[in-house]
Amino acid sequence: MLENKNIYTVAIAGATGLTGRELLEVLEEREFPVGDLVLLASERSEGERLDFRGRKWTVKRLGKGSFPDVDLAFFVAGEERARDFAPSAVSSGAVVIDGSGAFSDDPKVPLIVPGINAAMTGNHTGIIACPAPGSTAVAMVLQPIHAAATVRRAVVTTFEPVSGAGKKAMDELAGQTVALLNFRDVEKKVFPHQIAFNCLPQIGAVLEDGTTRDEARMEREVAKVLGSAGLRISTTAVRVPVFRGYAISLNIETERPLPPNEARAQLSQAPGVVVFDDPAHGVYPLQIDVVGKNDVFVGRIRKDDSLPNGLNLWVVCDDLRKGSAQNAVQIAEHLVRQ
Amino acid sequence: MLENKNIYTVAIAGATGLTGRELLEVLEEREFPVGDLVLLASERSEGERLDFRGRKWTVKRLGKGSFPDVDLAFFVAGEERARDFAPSAVSSGAVVIDGSGAFSDDPKVPLIVPGINAAMTGNHTGIIACPAPGSTAVAMVLQPIHAAATVRRAVVTTFEPVSGAGKKAMDELAGQTVALLNFRDVEKKVFPHQIAFNCLPQIGAVLEDGTTRDEARMEREVAKVLGSAGLRISTTAVRVPVFRGYAISLNIETERPLPPNEARAQLSQAPGVVVFDDPAHGVYPLQIDVVGKNDVFVGRIRKDDSLPNGLNLWVVCDDLRKGSAQNAVQIAEHLVRQ
Repeated sequence: MLENKNIYTVAIAGATGLTGRELLEVLEEREFPVGDLVLLASERSEGERLDFRGRKWTVKRLGKGSFPDVDLAFFVAGEERARDFAPSAVSSGAVVIDGSGAFSDDPKVPLIVPGINAAMTGNHTGIIACPAPGSTAVAMVLQPIHAAATVRRAVVTTFEPVSGAGKKAMDELAGQTVALLNFRDVEKKVFPHQIAFNCLPQIGAVLEDGTTRDEARMEREVAKVLGSAGLRISTTAVRVPVFRGYAISLNIETERPLPPNEARAQLSQAPGVVVFDDPAHGVYPLQIDVVGKNDVFVGRIRKDDSLPNGLNLWVVCDDLRKGSAQNAVQIAEHLVRQ
Repeated sequence: MLENKNIYTVAIAGATGLTGRELLEVLEEREFPVGDLVLLASERSEGERLDFRGRKWTVKRLGKGSFPDVDLAFFVAGEERARDFAPSAVSSGAVVIDGSGAFSDDPKVPLIVPGINAAMTGNHTGIIACPAPGSTAVAMVLQPIHAAATVRRAVVTTFEPVSGAGKKAMDELAGQTVALLNFRDVEKKVFPHQIAFNCLPQIGAVLEDGTTRDEARMEREVAKVLGSAGLRISTTAVRVPVFRGYAISLNIETERPLPPNEARAQLSQAPGVVVFDDPAHGVYPLQIDVVGKNDVFVGRIRKDDSLPNGLNLWVVCDDLRKGSAQNAVQIAEHLVRQ
């Protein structure tokens, strides 16, 4: 459990990555009571210096002994590092907030989207999980609809930016784009196929049943966050040539009828959800418009006439901000308030 | 009715557009019995010269008097021009093959995807309609699955290239991309919002119920081509920053169970459909790989566990080729053979 203090020693494992840097921004912006700051990364980034509250902080190498005196450790360095080092952080007495998905399956690990199930934050045994950006966005949109009309099933197709695959993936999109515009061959290092001017229908390894890890994670996490094991979700996850900003085509079947106007009203009242929906005037959320924003945006809310109780929606959020860093810091704030 | 001749006078209304040029290629490649060729376009393109069978043909201005002696008139110049000029072509004795969607609703107009319902080509009263690229692709994939297990409902999300909006749209994607990579502002002329490194969840005007024309056309055309008024489809159409090649995330509910392996077998036997499905080895169809190809490609065929009888698939075709020009010429071939 997190001790009640005025200031906390905070560690970030994966500090130099895109989400790590975003975390520093959000901690500063929300004035989180950071006392000491321990920035951790792989050997390659050791010695780098990052800004926080007008000071430079030196990045240290992540190891099992990185966590003495750490109260709160954010893990944003991928699944493998979370599995390797989060238990050491917990043994050293830290509470871990993990965004990698490594533990989101574990029944002992609460999976939290503040605004939906913050109350379960306290049930942890050292690790609290933060869902993937897409799971967070889908859960935040489904929750008010579920409360109003009971969601039976959702069909999800994602339009995921390259930022979800890290800084090198963003460089690869830029590099391939420049190469193609200059009639040169593209180089592929991060993605298995060309991502510039192309969409890739695979994110993460392919499981035995043909789904990808990213798709399976979405299906599992949304049901867990909403506490509805019976809620059925089918996901197709697609990488698009967009730098940042996560979009979702969301088709929902509800138990009871929920006309688009009522869905719009319910969503407008949900904390952290913003309805942006006037398509006849070109108004709907766009990936380029949500960068740096803390909310989940919904538009194109309309009836799906192929079902008695069907809805279609278009959902967009900043994958690094609301989808990751913001959610993690909100969990930390909840811990601190307890 | 088309007279039985050895060679035909063929007109193309919209000859200088992307689909018009593709039509010329396909007519040449498939050795369609073209005698005289009448290339028609708007005033702006009058006098342009296009290649066909090693000769230059001069583009004339499209008008009501453009069709004397024309046997067969392809219309690929948009809905408005089809409405304005196709009736004149029919009055002059030509058979019109229209790809604009202007007449696809009309119960007197057969809507043809050769390989599915070519037999209905003969039922025309002067105009035969060719579905939109997405409708063609979805119909070709649903047809064998429908025959095997009866499709109840499909949820469609499209990833549409800018080529569907014409040459200027392709220039706009290139221009905006270059501008952004040089830290300049983007110019917007064709699309209402930035398309470079962004996805637009609106294609075509928004109808009263909140769907777009493109979405409504897909829902209507697929049901008409498959002759299943009861087949329910819900579509979300999204423009992606891809030059050419149309992709679809397709979720299907069938009446009877159809395991992925059987679906794969049925699709493999369907004419014009190619299964390209080994995701564990990175094998699935990609938009960049289908340019110039005449088939519809399917991959990521897998069970949707959120339903008793559900399937997910990823479908890709060349919007200009199989989606438009190839389909139109195949209809013409069928007319000629009759």
